[in-house]
Parts: sequence; structure tokens; C-alpha cells
Amino acid sequence: MEHAFQARSIAIIGASESPNSVGGRPIHYMTRFGYRGVLFPVNPKREQVQGLKCYPSLDALPTSPELVIIAVSARRASEAMQACAQRGVRSVVMMSSGFSETGDAGRQAEQELVAIAQEAGIRLIGPNSQGIANFRDGVVANFSTMFMEVPPQDGNIAIIGQSGAASVMPYALLRERGLGVRYLAATGNDADVTSADLIEAVLEDPDIRLVLLYLEAIKDARSLARAAQRARERGVAIVALKSGTSRKGQSAASSHTGALATEDAVVDAFFRRHAIWRVRDIQDLAAASELYLANASLGRGQMLTMSHSGAVGVICADAAERLGVVLPDLSDATVQRLREIMPAFGAIHNPLDLTAGLLSDGTLFGKALDVLCADPRLDILHIGMPVAGEGYDVEGFARAARDASERSGKPVIVSGPQRAILSHFAAQGLLTYQSDTEVIRQVHQVVHHRRLMQQAPPPIDDAPPALQIGAAGDGMDEAASLRLLDAMGLPVVDHHVCHGAEQAREAFQRLGGTCVLKACTPAIPHKSEHGLVWLNLASETAVQKAYGDCLTRLEALGIEGTVIVARQESGLREIALGGRQDPVLGPVVLVGDGGKYVEAVKDYRLLVPPFTAAEVREALQQTRIWPILEGVRGDAPADIAALCDAAVRLGNTLAVTPTLDEIDLNPVLIKPAGQGAVIVDALISVKATADADDTPMLHHQEASA
Amino acid sequence: MEHAFQARSIAIIGASESPNSVGGRPIHYMTRFGYRGVLFPVNPKREQVQGLKCYPSLDALPTSPELVIIAVSARRASEAMQACAQRGVRSVVMMSSGFSETGDAGRQAEQELVAIAQEAGIRLIGPNSQGIANFRDGVVANFSTMFMEVPPQDGNIAIIGQSGAASVMPYALLRERGLGVRYLAATGNDADVTSADLIEAVLEDPDIRLVLLYLEAIKDARSLARAAQRARERGVAIVALKSGTSRKGQSAASSHTGALATEDAVVDAFFRRHAIWRVRDIQDLAAASELYLANASLGRGQMLTMSHSGAVGVICADAAERLGVVLPDLSDATVQRLREIMPAFGAIHNPLDLTAGLLSDGTLFGKALDVLCADPRLDILHIGMPVAGEGYDVEGFARAARDASERSGKPVIVSGPQRAILSHFAAQGLLTYQSDTEVIRQVHQVVHHRRLMQQAPPPIDDAPPALQIGAAGDGMDEAASLRLLDAMGLPVVDHHVCHGAEQAREAFQRLGGTCVLKACTPAIPHKSEHGLVWLNLASETAVQKAYGDCLTRLEALGIEGTVIVARQESGLREIALGGRQDPVLGPVVLVGDGGKYVEAVKDYRLLVPPFTAAEVREALQQTRIWPILEGVRGDAPADIAALCDAAVRLGNTLAVTPTLDEIDLNPVLIKPAGQGAVIVDALISVKATADADDTPMLHHQEASA
Repeated sequence: MEHAFQARSIAIIGASESPNSVGGRPIHYMTRFGYRGVLFPVNPKREQVQGLKCYPSLDALPTSPELVIIAVSARRASEAMQACAQRGVRSVVMMSSGFSETGDAGRQAEQELVAIAQEAGIRLIGPNSQGIANFRDGVVANFSTMFMEVPPQDGNIAIIGQSGAASVMPYALLRERGLGVRYLAATGNDADVTSADLIEAVLEDPDIRLVLLYLEAIKDARSLARAAQRARERGVAIVALKSGTSRKGQSAASSHTGALATEDAVVDAFFRRHAIWRVRDIQDLAAASELYLANASLGRGQMLTMSHSGAVGVICADAAERLGVVLPDLSDATVQRLREIMPAFGAIHNPLDLTAGLLSDGTLFGKALDVLCADPRLDILHIGMPVAGEGYDVEGFARAARDASERSGKPVIVSGPQRAILSHFAAQGLLTYQSDTEVIRQVHQVVHHRRLMQQAPPPIDDAPPALQIGAAGDGMDEAASLRLLDAMGLPVVDHHVCHGAEQAREAFQRLGGTCVLKACTPAIPHKSEHGLVWLNLASETAVQKAYGDCLTRLEALGIEGTVIVARQESGLREIALGGRQDPVLGPVVLVGDGGKYVEAVKDYRLLVPPFTAAEVREALQQTRIWPILEGVRGDAPADIAALCDAAVRLGNTLAVTPTLDEIDLNPVLIKPAGQGAVIVDALISVKATADADDTPMLHHQEASA
Repeated sequence: MEHAFQARSIAIIGASESPNSVGGRPIHYMTRFGYRGVLFPVNPKREQVQGLKCYPSLDALPTSPELVIIAVSARRASEAMQACAQRGVRSVVMMSSGFSETGDAGRQAEQELVAIAQEAGIRLIGPNSQGIANFRDGVVANFSTMFMEVPPQDGNIAIIGQSGAASVMPYALLRERGLGVRYLAATGNDADVTSADLIEAVLEDPDIRLVLLYLEAIKDARSLARAAQRARERGVAIVALKSGTSRKGQSAASSHTGALATEDAVVDAFFRRHAIWRVRDIQDLAAASELYLANASLGRGQMLTMSHSGAVGVICADAAERLGVVLPDLSDATVQRLREIMPAFGAIHNPLDLTAGLLSDGTLFGKALDVLCADPRLDILHIGMPVAGEGYDVEGFARAARDASERSGKPVIVSGPQRAILSHFAAQGLLTYQSDTEVIRQVHQVVHHRRLMQQAPPPIDDAPPALQIGAAGDGMDEAASLRLLDAMGLPVVDHHVCHGAEQAREAFQRLGGTCVLKACTPAIPHKSEHGLVWLNLASETAVQKAYGDCLTRLEALGIEGTVIVARQESGLREIALGGRQDPVLGPVVLVGDGGKYVEAVKDYRLLVPPFTAAEVREALQQTRIWPILEGVRGDAPADIAALCDAAVRLGNTLAVTPTLDEIDLNPVLIKPAGQGAVIVDALISVKATADADDTPMLHHQEASA
């Protein structure tokens, strides 16, 4: 798709004289913003358009254009596509609307367009697309009014989205702050080319360092995962706003772009796995751009906050703790060297209170800054300037801050409410913010995002072969479920399937302790609700009697089934472990507090496989039961490692076995550290056959292998 | 204190010629910003200061000034205070620093200042105060450099805080947005006059409609509660930033203003009780000011969000659901009338997609707006303008929006990234925001805040008399605790204190069911950990045997004690109910999930009494066990009403009984609806005598009575 962004010849079907019409504005922009390729207005009714020679049809062009913009009504769009196919065009931007966003008839018309495109080997952006833009080369195949009002400037950012408005809003915010944007694209209905495809395209450009993404629907999770993998390899950050999380928002989104509903927590997990940073509004989409593009490394993100106001220090320390940004204590050497520079320094800690002496003397301040920059515990220096003006050596201060930053290679960031004061620091090339806490928030975002980007999905070393599982509809009884789990390397309860009271007695003997007996039939998934579970069986007689009772009960219910005798287990806590194939985003694993109230209390986290045991542990740390798992009030710590290992195995199996539709293990009894965890109840459902799309989602693995 | 803000004569001890010094800047400001009273510079070394006659001492003044600013070093501050005392001065602003903020010696010096002031009937603001300002009258007894850089303008806002920087930062943000500020005060060390006192002072001015408050420490919870009560009566909103919530922030705050640590959740509960809206940073302190000051009513806060971008609608609907802002469905009449105006309207719902036809024609748009404003379900109309410019009738649009707002009295709010576009709407007097979601966020804040302001603390109708409780050190055994709870009207378990096995047997008979027997001694609060609890006693013999075992065990432990026989209770869930006297903020009640892991899982909420049962219910709705209390998966709903009632009684008793130090009821067994809840375990601790300050915190009650 990168060809479309670099197209050296562009035809506009539906070319218009008016720069305020869909078919006129791209021509206006390209002639104004330095496009150096050839433009072919196409319109049978005109000889000239905006001063350019106009052609009656594509056929009449001297050469086949590399890109065609279709800006005619929906009624005439199909005909225009046919013309493109005949002319050997490779890329089309279709601005025409009135397709899948309008209902069934439109959806069918859209499918016809796609069929034409695929047949002819054309990549189609749209329909209902506002278009694409490459501002470096003046390729502005885009009809937004925004570029009239806010002229473009080249930069290192790409904005990709499904919505025209959501692509130009961050553009406006970035431009207001003086940041340049190279690529901008609004894909509209994503009928053929998706946002993910365009991300891959812009990643071909080594100057791109940040991608801002707006999505209402994830049309192709695989290609988004692949694009994210490519971005991670290149060190390019992707920040995404995926909207439609609310009931009303989802319903508005589906009427807007026909988005499919996905549980929002799955989107979170998917983005985390693929190191895409998720935000909730347009402002946040653009907010951290300067920091992403900053040349200085943010290291581990350990900050010093200093200010001549105690209040700023307190507020920033609060924000840092809330977000998990570290304000490390200063080293003894740093404290001593600061005392040498300024004997009158008060308490020296982080947050640091600046003294009046330092603030009136830029050179003294520079010396102090150099000392601070040399402290290996500090990666970032933040200066809060709540108020300044007459009586402050703001100029000297700004120069000293720049010098210290340059000498040390560490970023110095300045915040304060007065824009006039900030401008002195900005003029020295320093990052400035009007809000003190915004600095903390953005450092948190960029540092955590970069850390996420370094956590590539792990290889599935001991990938189980795609499991042989029964056909759907057969259902799966507990014995089969336990066998399957055992084959996945998961810790299932010791048990025996018994045919006859004598086998039940033998099972009890072999298990050697108190047992549970339960019916085993796919017809009744929730056995205890039908009185088909016998607990606390502590003797051969008790087991044999229970066996007889069970068969009688099954007969009474008119159900065929066998019987399982299992060791009666206990643990420190009932855990829930589960997984399923999300229809949009693929495999996802759940881990958290188990028992009857899993869904009521929702104390769990979701993870998209493959993931590491360390990632499961991190997820568990977000649950409220974490302190209990670690051991409180005299309780033994639980075997968290065993639980993490089980989650990893479950995730790996789901990732390679698309027909494994849903696994619900509740409870998993977690035992004291070193003693493992054991699955005592399992509910598994499978699909008859994998859907056409259900090849394992491991492309990014193969790509990196 | 309102006199200080209106002082008609002001002396400045330590008056200076330089407008950039502490003793010179107030004079500079007052001569520049229209002060019409008399200024008396006091400095023995000068004849004139900044063109004004200068006096050698307070004695030399022709009259006693209404306010004195002390701007000399800490060393000479006491002498200056003495002079004020002799001259009969009523108000002093002390800018001198070097007192309690520097350590013990400074704290003592500060106490001496306060003693002089109190002896002489002087109200002292500071020391270490940046000063106060009343910009309407030019009373700028304040040395911040900010007013040099950002000139003042009178308005309806007061900014009060302990920190100078934290008072001028919101000032700068408000002024940048064109909002006026009438009062500004930074109290510094709050040695005598507190921030709460100054709030009460500014509330005397009927023009004040919003108070922004910055606190690092709450020095006097009673006066803050009283000020909040007064504000509520006047309909004035208080928005507060209370910092020092983090470990590092708290430690920085205590070195900054000597703030005492209080658990942050108690601060939240205290603010909620007193209808003070809490924010986390300076930007948020100022953020919703325009909306607070807007003349149009926000009603119930039900919004329509409309935009010509589907994306904006989706993003806003998501934000609304996240925050609990209602986007109601439009009435059938509204839908029909909109169709009449614009037959080509697409789907008509909320969020509403605008059509191109409407956007190019301001009059058509005005008609549609009038229809929407007439819909009784809608209180606020929000228009998202993601992009506009050439081709849009922005002017006509802005006029139509203003007219519709004026005709209906409903606010119309406009958002979009382009400041140039917003300025057209602002010029028509409409509220404008650069961020769409910020509109939703602020509507949420102001509507919920106003609702909170309408929830005055309830009267304590059935106020129990301050309870007779044992002296501290005596401890309190379980029998005494249960008696106390019973006297408070709380549902305690049926039980009997038994002396002898025969009494135990009789108790069992009277209780008539399975019983529990436990030792009763103040020496052992956690009885089960010492094997002093016998469960499941179902026969007379069992009870008598347990009685004997208990006595033997007590003897072996060398402890005297009696025995309690109680009915063995069961319930749907173990609840925790508790309360204590916070040393800073007074009585506070805890309610939430009970059992062993209360502190590990922290699924509870805090409430400051007095409160209503409805408020307890609202608090419980915030806990994760709420769905369980309501009844899930076939469980009966729990008797939430009984729990709420118990919490109300506990709160009322704590409010009137300051010696009741801490009550910990865990578990309270909650039963199915209609069957109540029962306290089966109680731990109560009391104070020997109430502290000097421990009069019940009900001043605001009495004031309103």
C-alpha cells in the first residue's frame, strides 16, 4: 500500500472546479501543497479543472495513473471501478459514500466493488473514505476541509483511522503545538484495505516514529497484530483510540462503520499483547507525541521533580505514586555536591525544593542541574515553574537547563501555567507543559509503553500439537475434558472412570484418601445442581454405596453416563482459569478469583496468548486477591508459579487449537507454594470445525522466527 | 475576617521601594490596581516609599490601620506583632517566613506570635503567607510575582489555599481563559486564621459563586465543615485539591506545611459529606469553572451529543457511560418534528449525527435546535465540531445556537479542536471546549456536585445520649461491647453471660438451638486464636462440657473471665461494619465485605456521619460485593436495609460520643431480605476522656437548627 502514498500520477474521477467539493479539494490541495507528480482530472463535462487539462474518461489518459481517486456518487462508483480495472490501476481511494454504512443494499454494492477490485488486483481504500495524505510529497488524496484551515507541515507522525473526523482532530491538535504530520489516512468502511494495512505501509518509511490510530471496529485482528509486530521491530510506537466501548457508543459505532461488538476487556488484553497503547479520547491520542519523538532516552523513567513551590512537589509526588512513576531518593554523593554548591539548601530530597538563591542565578542553577543530571538514579529531570517573571532569571535558567540536558543526554522537562514563561524554555528546545501532572502522566505512558514494546510475545516452545478433540454437538463429558487438560500438561485431579461398583472401590483404594464421586455425562454440565456429586467419601463402603446411588439417579433422569471417582482436594483459594476464542480477536485467557461469584465480582484479568508466566503474575498482581495469594494474616503463600504455568499452557493450547472454543476451569484449587494447583472441575466446548479464518493466530511468530 | 479583605487603611511594616521585594510589591500592586483606601508604608529608614509618605513606626501613623502587612525577617516579626497589638490593629497578614515550616524552634516562635495575637484580639494570617487579595477593591496585600505578569480582573471566583504557588496557578489558568477572580489568599502556616476561616469570609460576599481551595493539611475539620455548610446554604460550590495523598507527597507536605497524615479515603468521605468536590491537580481545580458560573441550569444533566462526525458521537457516548452521564433517547415527538424539518435525516438517536444539509444552513439548523431544546428529556445540548471552516456556515450556526439557548434557557456547549472555529461560538456567549470528552467530564462534575450539595447531612433524630462507656485501660469485654451495641439499637446476637455450668445449660435452653460458647475477657480480644471458642453446640451436655473446658483453658492461661453462650447464627455473607474517631477529621464509618481478608481485599467504603440509609446504600453500590448482596445465581437478596440502618445508628452514636474511639464489628452476618443482620463479634475501644477538641462534631447541625 505504500505505493498509494507515493503515487507519481493521480487521476480524480469526478474532478471538480470547486475547491470546496469532494472532487475538487484534493486537486486544490495537491496544486497548493507541492505535489510534483502528474494530476489527471477526469470529468466528461469539462475541458479544464482548476487550471489543469481535464480528461473525459480514464481511457483518455496518456498513461495509467498509479492512484485513482473516485469522487462520484455511489450510483456511478461501480462503473468507475470497472474503468480502473480495465486501465490496470493498482490503487483506488473511493470517497463515494452510501455503501455498507447505509444498510444491506449498500453492503451488497460494497461487496461488488471489492469483487471488482480483487479480480483486477486493485487495492481499494474505502468506500466512504475521506482519503489519504502524504504531506512530504504533497500527495493529498483527501477531501477534509481541515487542511484549508490548518496548513500541513511534514513530520515523523502518521495518523491512521477509520473516521475522517477522528483523523483530522489529532492533526489539528498536533499542528497547534507545532508538530508535523507526514501521513494521514481515513479508511472509511475498510472494505478491502484496512487501517492495519496502512500502518504497515507507513512503517516502510524510516522517518515515521509514531503512529496514532483510531478504530471503531477491528476488522482483521491478524493484520493488526502483524502491523504491531512490525512497529515493535522498528521501535515505532502505536497509540490507539478504540471507541465503541459503551452500549450507546457501540450502537452508534455499528451504525457508523458496521463495527462488531467485542468485550472491551478483550480489546485491552489484545492491545497489551501487541504493545499498542490504548487511550480514551482524541486529546490523549495526541498528548504524549512530543515525548515519543524526543531524542533523549527516558531510561527507566526515574524522575526528579523540583520546583520553588512545595505544593508542586507534593502534587507531583501524589501523581507519581498514583501512576507508578518512580521518584528515587537522591544518592548521598548528589546531596553532598548540592550542599557544596548551595550551602543554604534546605532539606534535599525528591521532590526537591529550589531555593531563592538558585532561582535568581542561572549559572548557579546550571551547576546544580549538572550535579543532578550526573546522578545515575535519575533518568529525567522535571522542573515545575508555578510562577515566574520579574525577579527571576528565566533566560539564564532556560539556557542552563538546555546545557545540562545536552551535556548529560537526559531530558529536562519544564511545566507551569504561564505560557509566556514556558516559551523561553521551548525556545531552548526543551519540552514544556502547562500542567505539572501531565508531565508525570506522559512519562508514565511513554516509559510503560516502551517497556511493553520490549515484551515481544514469547515463542510457544513446547507447543502442543493441535489437539484431537471431539466434534461439537457430541459435547464433551468430564472424563474427556480431564483427558484433554492432561494432554495440555495441566494439573488435573487424580481420578478414575469407573464401570461398576467394584471399579469404584478399586479407584478409592488406589487414590488412598477421601474421595468424591460424580456422574460423568455430557448431558449434564452442572452436576451438583442435579444431585449427582457425592463428597467426603472416606470408606470403600461409602464409595460403593455412592456408586449405586449415582446409577439409580442417572436412570431416574433417563440419562446414560459413567461415573468418576476422584481424590477430594483442598486448597488455599478457589481460582478461576479459563479461555476462549473471541470471534473478533482470537484466543484469550482469563485468570482470577474463582468460585460461584466469578462473574458477579469480576476479580480477574484477561491475557492474549502467547504470554509468559511473568506476564500472568503481573496480571494477577492487578487482582484484589493478590495479597491473599501472597499470604496474609498468617496464611501460607499460594503456589502462584504453578497457576502461572497452567495459564501459559492453556494459552498456548488455545493459540494453536482454534477448534477449542471455550474452557472454563472453576475452581482450580491453589495450594501452598511448592504444592501446585489442581483442576477439580472442567467445562470445555469445541467447535465442529475451525472457521475459514481460524488458522492459528501466530503469524507474527512465524514472521519473527 | 471579611474586614481584612475590605480594609480601608493598610500599613506595610518593612515597606520597600523595590516593587520586586516582598515589602514593596503589595504597595506597587495597590497603587496600580485601584486601591482607594489609605496606604501607610512603615520603614524607619525612609521618608518616602514608591511616592508615598513613609512612617518610622506604627505609633507614628495618624490612625490605627485596619490591616497590617508584616514583611520583615522572622527575627523582627515578634516585635512587629507587639506593635500591632499596642496600636489596636485587628488583622495582620504576616509574610515573614522561618517559623513552623523550619522545625521546632520556628514552631515555638510561631506559637509566641499566635499568643500575642490572641491576647490582643488580632486575627493573624500566616506566618509564611503570600498574602491575600481582593481585586475588586484593589486590596492586594500579596507579594506574588504573578499579578505583574497576569493582570487581575474582578469576577465571581475566590481562590483560597495554604500555598502561594497553588493559589496563583489556578489564577493564571482562569485568567488565560478570560475568567475573573475577586479574592485570592494563601494562608501559609495557618497558625491562627485557617483556609476555612477565609472561605467563610468570602462567602459574606453575595457575588462569590465558586471557591477553589488548595489544602495540604486540614487544620480544623470543624471550621471547614462549617464553611462548607455555609457555602451549601448559599449555593456556592467548593472545589478542592487536597494533596499529600502519597507517601512521598505526604512527607513533602509535612516538611512544607507541617501537615498531619490522614488516611486519604477518610478525606474523600469527609469531602463527600460536606459536598466539597475533590480534584487531583491544579488544572482540574480550575477546569469546570465556566460551567459552575454558567447562568443556565444544568437540570438533571441529561445531555444530547450531536456532531457531523460519527466518531465524536461514539467517543462521547463512551465517556458518558464511563462517568454515568445520561444521554437519553429522544422522545417520539422530537424525532417526528426533526424529520419534518429535514426529511433526509438518517437515523435519529442520541448521539445524533448531523447532516450536511443542516450544517450548510444556519436557519435550518436553528429550527432543529429549537426542536431539540423543547424535548423535556434533554437538559443540555452539546455540539461537537471536529472540523469546520470553508463550506460551513459557522457564523449562522453560532447565532442559531445562541438563539436556541436563549429561547429555551438550556445551555448549548460546543467543542472542537480548532480554536478559530470555537471563537465564533464563544463570541455568541456559548461555552466552548477544545476537547469533546471534557464537556462530558465537566457536566458530570457540576451536576453530581450540585446533587451532593443538595444532600445536607441528616438530623440525628433518634440521637442516642452520649453513651456511658468504661474508662480506657479497663478495656471492654465482649459482654460489655454487646451491651453497648444493644444500647445503640444495633442487632446483636442473642446471648447470655453465664456464671457456672448450670447457667450455661439454662442459656442453651432459652436460646433453643445450636449455640456457640466463648470466653469473655478483655485480656484476649481474638478468642478463636487462643482456642476459646466452641462451635456447633447442639445439646445441653455439649454446652456444659464446653463450659468446663473453657474454664480449664482460662485457668491454664491464668486469666479471669466469664463465659458467653450465644445463638449460633448464619447469614448470606460476612459483612464488616466499623467506625472510629479520625484524629484529624473526626468520626468515620466503614461498611463493606467482611471476614478475615477485610484489609487485604479492601472492598469497603467510608462514610462520615451523620448520613442516611440511602447514602449507605449508595456506598455499598460502589463495592464489588454489591451484586452478591442484591442476589445472583439463585441466591436470595440480602437484607440491605437492615445493614444500612445499623450503619446509620453506628454513625450517629460515633458522632455524639467522642470517647467511643473505635468499633470493629466483623463479621456482621447479613440475612435474606426481611430477616435482618446480626452482629456476632465485636471489638470496641474507648478513650479515657475526650480530648479537649472532642466535642461532638455537630456544629453545622446546630447552626442550621
